[in-house]
Amino acid sequence: MTLSASLSAQQFDDSIQLEQDGSILTLWLNRPESRNAMSLNMVKAIQQVFKAIENDLSIRAVILRGQGGHFCAGGDIKDMAQLRGEAVTAGSNQPYVDFNRQFGHMIQQVDQAPQTVVAILEGAVLGGGFGLACVSDIAISLADAKFGLPETGLGVIPAQIAPFVVKRIGLTQARRLALLGTRFDGQTALKVGVVHEVVENQQDLDALLLETIQQIKRTAPQASRVTKALLHRTLNEPLHSLLDDAAQQFANAVGGEEGMEGTMAFIQKRNPNWFDGD
Amino acid sequence: MTLSASLSAQQFDDSIQLEQDGSILTLWLNRPESRNAMSLNMVKAIQQVFKAIENDLSIRAVILRGQGGHFCAGGDIKDMAQLRGEAVTAGSNQPYVDFNRQFGHMIQQVDQAPQTVVAILEGAVLGGGFGLACVSDIAISLADAKFGLPETGLGVIPAQIAPFVVKRIGLTQARRLALLGTRFDGQTALKVGVVHEVVENQQDLDALLLETIQQIKRTAPQASRVTKALLHRTLNEPLHSLLDDAAQQFANAVGGEEGMEGTMAFIQKRNPNWFDGD
Amino acid sequence: MTLSASLSAQQFDDSIQLEQDGSILTLWLNRPESRNAMSLNMVKAIQQVFKAIENDLSIRAVILRGQGGHFCAGGDIKDMAQLRGEAVTAGSNQPYVDFNRQFGHMIQQVDQAPQTVVAILEGAVLGGGFGLACVSDIAISLADAKFGLPETGLGVIPAQIAPFVVKRIGLTQARRLALLGTRFDGQTALKVGVVHEVVENQQDLDALLLETIQQIKRTAPQASRVTKALLHRTLNEPLHSLLDDAAQQFANAVGGEEGMEGTMAFIQKRNPNWFDGD
Repeated sequence: MTLSASLSAQQFDDSIQLEQDGSILTLWLNRPESRNAMSLNMVKAIQQVFKAIENDLSIRAVILRGQGGHFCAGGDIKDMAQLRGEAVTAGSNQPYVDFNRQFGHMIQQVDQAPQTVVAILEGAVLGGGFGLACVSDIAISLADAKFGLPETGLGVIPAQIAPFVVKRIGLTQARRLALLGTRFDGQTALKVGVVHEVVENQQDLDALLLETIQQIKRTAPQASRVTKALLHRTLNEPLHSLLDDAAQQFANAVGGEEGMEGTMAFIQKRNPNWFDGD
Repeated sequence: MTLSASLSAQQFDDSIQLEQDGSILTLWLNRPESRNAMSLNMVKAIQQVFKAIENDLSIRAVILRGQGGHFCAGGDIKDMAQLRGEAVTAGSNQPYVDFNRQFGHMIQQVDQAPQTVVAILEGAVLGGGFGLACVSDIAISLADAKFGLPETGLGVIPAQIAPFVVKRIGLTQARRLALLGTRFDGQTALKVGVVHEVVENQQDLDALLLETIQQIKRTAPQASRVTKALLHRTLNEPLHSLLDDAAQQFANAVGGEEGMEGTMAFIQKRNPNWFDGD
Repeated sequence: MTLSASLSAQQFDDSIQLEQDGSILTLWLNRPESRNAMSLNMVKAIQQVFKAIENDLSIRAVILRGQGGHFCAGGDIKDMAQLRGEAVTAGSNQPYVDFNRQFGHMIQQVDQAPQTVVAILEGAVLGGGFGLACVSDIAISLADAKFGLPETGLGVIPAQIAPFVVKRIGLTQARRLALLGTRFDGQTALKVGVVHEVVENQQDLDALLLETIQQIKRTAPQASRVTKALLHRTLNEPLHSLLDDAAQQFANAVGGEEGMEGTMAFIQKRNPNWFDGD
């Protein structure tokens, strides 16, 4: 349960908690008294974690989840009141701008994290919490979780999360959800494409998470990183040159250590040497 | 039931009908004798309406629907025959080009309308009617509606609607539907992602539409407009600069009148002052 | 059953087989001993076929399927071993690069083929086979087919297929499937959007394929080609100029031979003259 060197050297804010079990890091959002609403400190702490482990190949996956039965309720009225005070003092709305943009930087960072990111969605998955769920690689929801984009009902906008929601579920679903602001449960989240799997209770959740982790451990660390980066690049780069580059990456992989070991393990019907599961 | 000043000052073609109930405008396609086929006059009348209300914040939503039990059957053989006559007279196919492109201008305009656009889909939802359905923010279908892209079976192409169909349901579904030309019902339209909700009968339709309208009225007028525009921009603009701009828009919203009122209403557990529903 | 002139003039590698029935060409992957794994010869033979028929309007559709109960298991360990030998001899990983990139060229070519491409998915649909399935216009799967992206579990990456998988099913599903490497059946392939239809057995498959072919024969040859190309262009070109060009194409179609015949056939309630079905 001790943390990697990349993490243990650092101090983190109380708004998050870290647990490490071998190659799996669990990042708990830890403001249960406000349903894990995203404070500026929490945003910065999440960024600090992902920055610290960026090049740490010993960490394969990050499990994102919330303490106290909620994932994340988005913004917090109290935090907003504090920002308002700062805005009044500053005589400008720059404090709002900075806080909001910082949240977007965090979402971008988690989206592009080289590790496989698993989100466990329970209770409130609202606003910014919804946005964070949208950048996970694997999203598992409890059936009774409550999803939604309540911003327009509160007179504000889903500013930093809009691009990630559209990328996650497409414009067709995003426009309805954002313009109605309605809440919906895990099954609807599955249908519209926010999450990949829905479970009925904590026991099923534990079982599915364990299975997911085992599966992640079976994949090659370096190949998984390269694959995740490649998938993201498909959305932004011209096809022809991307495929040229991907062929080079394929050659590096198949001729490299992981490719050799993976092929041998397959022929010998054994687990590859990177597998640290059960 | 009287129309807003922005609308009452204008004359509209008989091919459409307008009804206003407070902040909700219903635009009826009104050529029931030809299953509301899109004539040039109808196209221009729809554009005229959306142009007139563009900056009218008192209109929150436009309900698009068809008289006589059909949404819209697309093009009309009689209209095409007339165009053929014009083409022969002109000695060029420019009349076809102009008519077709005008239809595309209308679809673009409805797609980008600042209001929340709700499509009620009954009977024929074919060709151009299918394209119009694809730019709604919320699409509610009767189970027995008939959807389809019949163009290739008629020796023509879904020219102006192709981009909107792909944006709506993705290339994977669009290529099959356009290349087979088959018709399908509301449940299949839900599965492939054309519509958001399916109802079995008129009574359920009325109930769901009422509920949808109530929900729209709960959202803030200005915040909804800004949100809809932002969602569209996510498809065309670089992420980083978009998020910078969105943070500024967030600050304007949260520090503005709607953001103040929305927060207060939330704390005081009351409806915000922009709510004009029941 | 004789081949078109465009095909009969050519010699093809044994790794594929061709069958032609009127306007329908079936391309069988024919390495059943290795579950139709993609050898370099097979890749080149597929490219040769699609190149040969590119301008052959008499061929309306290509049915892609595999001999021996499998569609395609992706790469072949034996082929990889041979490449390794070549890489050692060459003292460079260029043989891997060339093989991998060639596969991508083939996928691009099939994706853009002017014919309607139907994939029949049985048994193994893995890695490169999965990628090939992702560029079909219509994908029909047996319920017990086995889909998957096993690359990361083997220490390699889904290099050439990544863009086509993301285009097929979106980033949300692609990132999970590629990073877990799990296998899944036809029903799941339908849910995540890889395939359009699932059948339980060979008899239902035959019936659905027949019906699909009849439907393809009802659509106009030239209009279908233009429509397919237009759908692809919607992903890469600015909307306004694309719609301008599409209006011109619409005018050409409606004023051309197919448009005239299609309209007349519709009015006269008969099959159009391009229909060669039953």
